[in-house]
Amino acid sequence: MSHRQPLNLLPEAEQQLRLDRMRRLMADASLPAILVTDLANIYYITGRVYTGYIYLPSEGKPIYFVRRPVELEGDGVVYIRKPEQMTESIGLNLPEAVGLELDLLPYNSAMRLSSALGGIATPNASPVLRAARAVKTAMEQDALRMSGVKQEHVYRLIPKLYREGMRDIELQVEIERALRLEGCLGQFRISGDSMELYMANILTGRNADNPTPYDFAMGGAGLDPSLPVGADGEIIKDHTTVMVDANGNFTGYMTDMTRTFSLGTIEELAVKAHDTSVAICRAIAEAARPGAEAKSLWKIAETMAADAGLAEYFMGHTQKAGFVGHGVGIEINELPVIAPRSRDIIAEGNVIAVEPKFVIPKVGAVGIENTYIVGHDSTECITRAPESLTPLV
Amino acid sequence: MSHRQPLNLLPEAEQQLRLDRMRRLMADASLPAILVTDLANIYYITGRVYTGYIYLPSEGKPIYFVRRPVELEGDGVVYIRKPEQMTESIGLNLPEAVGLELDLLPYNSAMRLSSALGGIATPNASPVLRAARAVKTAMEQDALRMSGVKQEHVYRLIPKLYREGMRDIELQVEIERALRLEGCLGQFRISGDSMELYMANILTGRNADNPTPYDFAMGGAGLDPSLPVGADGEIIKDHTTVMVDANGNFTGYMTDMTRTFSLGTIEELAVKAHDTSVAICRAIAEAARPGAEAKSLWKIAETMAADAGLAEYFMGHTQKAGFVGHGVGIEINELPVIAPRSRDIIAEGNVIAVEPKFVIPKVGAVGIENTYIVGHDSTECITRAPESLTPLV
Repeated sequence: MSHRQPLNLLPEAEQQLRLDRMRRLMADASLPAILVTDLANIYYITGRVYTGYIYLPSEGKPIYFVRRPVELEGDGVVYIRKPEQMTESIGLNLPEAVGLELDLLPYNSAMRLSSALGGIATPNASPVLRAARAVKTAMEQDALRMSGVKQEHVYRLIPKLYREGMRDIELQVEIERALRLEGCLGQFRISGDSMELYMANILTGRNADNPTPYDFAMGGAGLDPSLPVGADGEIIKDHTTVMVDANGNFTGYMTDMTRTFSLGTIEELAVKAHDTSVAICRAIAEAARPGAEAKSLWKIAETMAADAGLAEYFMGHTQKAGFVGHGVGIEINELPVIAPRSRDIIAEGNVIAVEPKFVIPKVGAVGIENTYIVGHDSTECITRAPESLTPLV
Repeated sequence: MSHRQPLNLLPEAEQQLRLDRMRRLMADASLPAILVTDLANIYYITGRVYTGYIYLPSEGKPIYFVRRPVELEGDGVVYIRKPEQMTESIGLNLPEAVGLELDLLPYNSAMRLSSALGGIATPNASPVLRAARAVKTAMEQDALRMSGVKQEHVYRLIPKLYREGMRDIELQVEIERALRLEGCLGQFRISGDSMELYMANILTGRNADNPTPYDFAMGGAGLDPSLPVGADGEIIKDHTTVMVDANGNFTGYMTDMTRTFSLGTIEELAVKAHDTSVAICRAIAEAARPGAEAKSLWKIAETMAADAGLAEYFMGHTQKAGFVGHGVGIEINELPVIAPRSRDIIAEGNVIAVEPKFVIPKVGAVGIENTYIVGHDSTECITRAPESLTPLV
């Protein structure tokens, strides 16, 4: 049986859009060519994940160097076993410099590639790739919309999944199952290797205030010190909240959505903080227009939290997160970043997860997170589950 | 509420064992000090994950530079916000070289650390850390045994989770749920970023022969080209096998186990291949004594497969894996590697997953995988679910 398949799974015009965009950014950065090897970037350029490289010159067609899987075919496909074969097998006419993903490539891999390229200059191509991916094409936006619809379906089921006396992790397992049955791919792609999570982060009661080592917006002690984040196995108690921030990767593109549920009556301070979160999302969505400074969006959130007398609880209590929003797409930590010292400028086609959250000691975490597509003169919310604090029973 | 906690969660004698082992390897490699930042390595040294660094000199106590979480305490704990503060804040008396994890650290992170250390030599410390972790202490072996017991419980449930007409992914979701309810942490740690998987790989029927880009032993098309591995959503058919290779991380240390199930009668060739896999595991377990060459264990497997007339199907059919076993512990791809050109030598305390598998076109994948602890004059199998081809109904 043959497994021959076209390497490039993107429609030709779609790939051209992405290549053109990358090439404009390469020109701005004076990069005559780049060599791509990160799996998320390979997926961006071809619509599939393979191991190997993509050589993209400023002019001419890309060359796809493939290590695995076997039997991919198409224009520019060259099978290799080791990077040294790139120059040996096709006699690449290399320019004076080839950009590499130096923010991601392990040091020794970068050195080996540089040597395989004959020791020419290998400046950093990571910013070009990050900038290209920050502005989503119409096709990418559609993939994100589809993820949002499916994620919303699952979020609407959550109250039905709760049973009295459940531990936080038990509810999480039922949510994970519902996500998977809805088609969630289960892969939670994160650029770099300093964040680890795979399906969901559920926080209830006092566990919400446990600090974690990771750069996620919220914490939790986790079940084990080998993975100190999220649910810690406690029973969900009356008068606490349950914040659910669960995997929205149904299409290779992830939406990011958080909703908060409640058990019994909830302290007024927490209700107020939740409503403030919803209001901050609205305000940021209103202000997130092309040309706006990302840091000005952070300022809106910070000011609204302070004006509501909630500064102490905003983005964490014992430990605070340093951002209130982030780009999302193939990976969970894309550009732009909405943070106090961000230098990012909002652009049409950005897809931004906005997550103004509060931690109220003993009660739990409250607030919501929505994913928005930035349009020319409006933003579109693509995570549309009900935003109010929702009773579990 | 205070969240103060001791940074080091290992018993003092246990940590000393690990530090002594690392220091012997550092001496062999002429490394007067190393700076550790990979999360798996930090977990190995302290019993917890935090973001920051560990400075380990050949003599004297380690220094724990912590970025997050807040409120860890203990001897040698120093909070920093950026790596430059390591030398500024405590006036480290640096030796002539400090080893860095150059196989893992992104190029730009390595350059920044090197500069933060004043531009001294920063040779590669990755081999030292990999070698240290390849030999498990008694405490690590116990964590692995406990993971094995829990993983076995779940594997015994698998026939009960099957329902007629199920798609492969539906069975996988039920296995994932059972794993999670048994306490599986859900994190599948892999060193490096070229392999992506998180809970399970289930292969049935013709999908077993679909090649993937990843360096896992088996393939599968997956549900989407963004994650091309494992179950592809097909209904499990009569006269096919279902191979289950599912996450065994219940303790921060992972066991790796594969079992194969069958639906209806199975072609004789596949049954023979399954029995050959069991026999290869026995033979490798028998031969995996301290001092044995890892490549000799590969040779045993290859020869037995060929003698059974099964070379064509061994370790894949359309695409073959290049190894039949690998070390396992905190991560899934540890040393030693059992492969044709491996230079690893088996040592007492190695924990090795042995996975001689076969892909029989149309029928599916067959074979088993066990995790073994290498002892002085015996190996201990710690994944004890029944090994025979097990009917699903």
